[in-house]
Amino acid sequence: MLIHSASQLLTLTPGPQRGRDLGMLNIIEDGALLLEGETIAAVGPTPDLLAAHPSEPRLDASGCAVLPGFVDPHTHLVWAGDRAAEFERKMAGAKYLDILAAGGGIISTVRKTRAASLEQLLDETRPRLKHMFTHGTTTAEAKTGYGLDTQTEIKLLQALLALDAEGPLELAPTFLGAHAVAPEYRDDPQGYTDLVCSEMLPAVRDWWDERHGQSSTGHRPFVDVFCENKAFDLAQSRQILSRAKELGFPLKIHADEFDNLGGASLAVDLGAVSADHLVKTSEADIAALGKSDTVAVSLPCTPFGLAESEYTPAQKILDAGGILALATDCNPGTAWCESMQFVIALACRALKLTPAQAIAAATINSAHAIRRADRVGSLHPGKQADLLILSVPDYRMLGYRFGANLVRQVVKRGRVYEIA
Amino acid sequence: MLIHSASQLLTLTPGPQRGRDLGMLNIIEDGALLLEGETIAAVGPTPDLLAAHPSEPRLDASGCAVLPGFVDPHTHLVWAGDRAAEFERKMAGAKYLDILAAGGGIISTVRKTRAASLEQLLDETRPRLKHMFTHGTTTAEAKTGYGLDTQTEIKLLQALLALDAEGPLELAPTFLGAHAVAPEYRDDPQGYTDLVCSEMLPAVRDWWDERHGQSSTGHRPFVDVFCENKAFDLAQSRQILSRAKELGFPLKIHADEFDNLGGASLAVDLGAVSADHLVKTSEADIAALGKSDTVAVSLPCTPFGLAESEYTPAQKILDAGGILALATDCNPGTAWCESMQFVIALACRALKLTPAQAIAAATINSAHAIRRADRVGSLHPGKQADLLILSVPDYRMLGYRFGANLVRQVVKRGRVYEIA
Repeated sequence: MLIHSASQLLTLTPGPQRGRDLGMLNIIEDGALLLEGETIAAVGPTPDLLAAHPSEPRLDASGCAVLPGFVDPHTHLVWAGDRAAEFERKMAGAKYLDILAAGGGIISTVRKTRAASLEQLLDETRPRLKHMFTHGTTTAEAKTGYGLDTQTEIKLLQALLALDAEGPLELAPTFLGAHAVAPEYRDDPQGYTDLVCSEMLPAVRDWWDERHGQSSTGHRPFVDVFCENKAFDLAQSRQILSRAKELGFPLKIHADEFDNLGGASLAVDLGAVSADHLVKTSEADIAALGKSDTVAVSLPCTPFGLAESEYTPAQKILDAGGILALATDCNPGTAWCESMQFVIALACRALKLTPAQAIAAATINSAHAIRRADRVGSLHPGKQADLLILSVPDYRMLGYRFGANLVRQVVKRGRVYEIA
Repeated sequence: MLIHSASQLLTLTPGPQRGRDLGMLNIIEDGALLLEGETIAAVGPTPDLLAAHPSEPRLDASGCAVLPGFVDPHTHLVWAGDRAAEFERKMAGAKYLDILAAGGGIISTVRKTRAASLEQLLDETRPRLKHMFTHGTTTAEAKTGYGLDTQTEIKLLQALLALDAEGPLELAPTFLGAHAVAPEYRDDPQGYTDLVCSEMLPAVRDWWDERHGQSSTGHRPFVDVFCENKAFDLAQSRQILSRAKELGFPLKIHADEFDNLGGASLAVDLGAVSADHLVKTSEADIAALGKSDTVAVSLPCTPFGLAESEYTPAQKILDAGGILALATDCNPGTAWCESMQFVIALACRALKLTPAQAIAAATINSAHAIRRADRVGSLHPGKQADLLILSVPDYRMLGYRFGANLVRQVVKRGRVYEIA
């Protein structure tokens, strides 16, 4: 199939787009793409590709900007229930402790998720995947972390593999047994840390390796930890991630969402693939990220969701030479948002990115943040045919406009899905 | 038709919901609505209505919250072109004067709008109306104001009447010839003010009265003025609105968006239907609003769109007894947003409203802000059958969630439109 006459074809660079190089869209005006099955075979000006492939079936993208499908590199995705009542109480002025006393907080989601069957989890998650896909996300990372016991955490991995297999959206799974201290270990966080290291991580490795090949890639899942006050301190985070590394897992970290514990530097030290959140990140941590290959993943929906005013110091990260990516953080507690289009609009304002920078951070750099940049995140021959045909001619409408879906068609592995 | 089994049927009160009474949703659990043609004939518990009307055709709303269609009481809606390039320059750090020098700002939209044919304006506006409608807006106010000469301003009114006649979304038109000082009068704002009073307003009245009955209601349009530094000062605003009142127009005002000039108190003084923006509103102005029937319309997308941190002091307005409503302000300069769902999510966070308060402000109170509460904004027998069937069972998902469209079906004048 030949997609032709795109007003702007954003091919991007293979990246990662580091520091002030962020935002290289490599635009072909009146651009065209030749697809062969699931793969991009050629990219170029429309007249050239039409002349070279005159009898190819055509898809007219006149008046449309075309860009890579969004890669969302940080979502929590699989949970049961919701916390709408808790949100209402928060907006009415309730404090954190009142909410816990009323049965709210992450542990309420853990309770519901443990009680849910695999089928129920799949049923509750599919509408979220549909929102993500219709808003242009073609690949997403997705974490466990509402089980907090070995059995439920593996049930969540099962759910992620099943949803990945259903498609069309591809999922890159992450094991986040260290999302919070399990309620059974409320007074013994070190005991829970030891459990993660001695029981959960080996169990996940064994379970995964038995099924190797059932995921779309066969890669081991990422292992992530929530390095934060009231979750896991720096030593516990190091203990968990070091053990995961020993066992052969690639690493991620939740760092500096509410307090600076040094998680970003720990990520760099251990060679983690990404460090995520990065709100209270220190100058030293920023400098460390800037010299590393660890991708700095900003989640602006989280401060927005919590009505906070402080966001990732993105400009400092760019000045330091860091690799900046964007994600939704889709989760039931702080940011139930499936749309990378909204993330882009918010990042322009809260992180002071240009639309071009935000788009690069949401495609090629976020593909690097989940080690899938060999297949997705830019539009080049040999890469997977994952792309968006917008209903508007100018990429800058992403960012400038907000609240509506600007995707007309999603192309995933060469197949066209009509959106609006 | 009988819409039945709604998990929550939000009927609201006829309003206006004043001060701390905001948020009365009057929910019927397992609720049903009987529609007769374009009108609501009955509202009540599902078992009662099913028993009373056993052979009526049915629409099953199980698992869905049902509420009045949103009324968006402040949009600019009809313009030509876009300012995406200007947005990009702003995010890259350009100052206001640089943008003007590069041909940006409101006057660039005026130039394009003057040059556009009526057909072109309709073509450019229809996609915005579609986004509004699919996101649940069933009635919207819409302003002229990108003409700034008599002929173009009347062309914009023509466009609004034509789009209202096309439907399904109903439009309440507003004449905003005093949106900015026309470029021809750049150095003579008083001269332009005099032109609005002596030429434009009488011309609009004559033109409108000739066509009386072509709009969906036959009401005269509102007359609005942008009372702000670099637009119209308080005396000029009073001159324009007083003249409009003499000529029999109902009044609105843009007040306190960037500076406090006393516009809100002027609105109260003249008996305006609404005062809109209200960011820099003083305690005295808030007190005046609180004692009046002038609806306080907050436009949180505008500070959001401009990446500013100050919003309408909504809690103070509620404490003072004011009637608070919400709108998008959809426009190409500061807030290209069509979605009242996003306005609700933003208002919860930036104005500290509960979802219930935000919904009441976006339905019944916003209907009062355009004098249509006799027909829309709540679900009661005799009112127009304008309502939303959500894809979720709990109204609090509005506000809590953001970025995705939660409307499953829009019912407009009794006709069902499938959305997702």
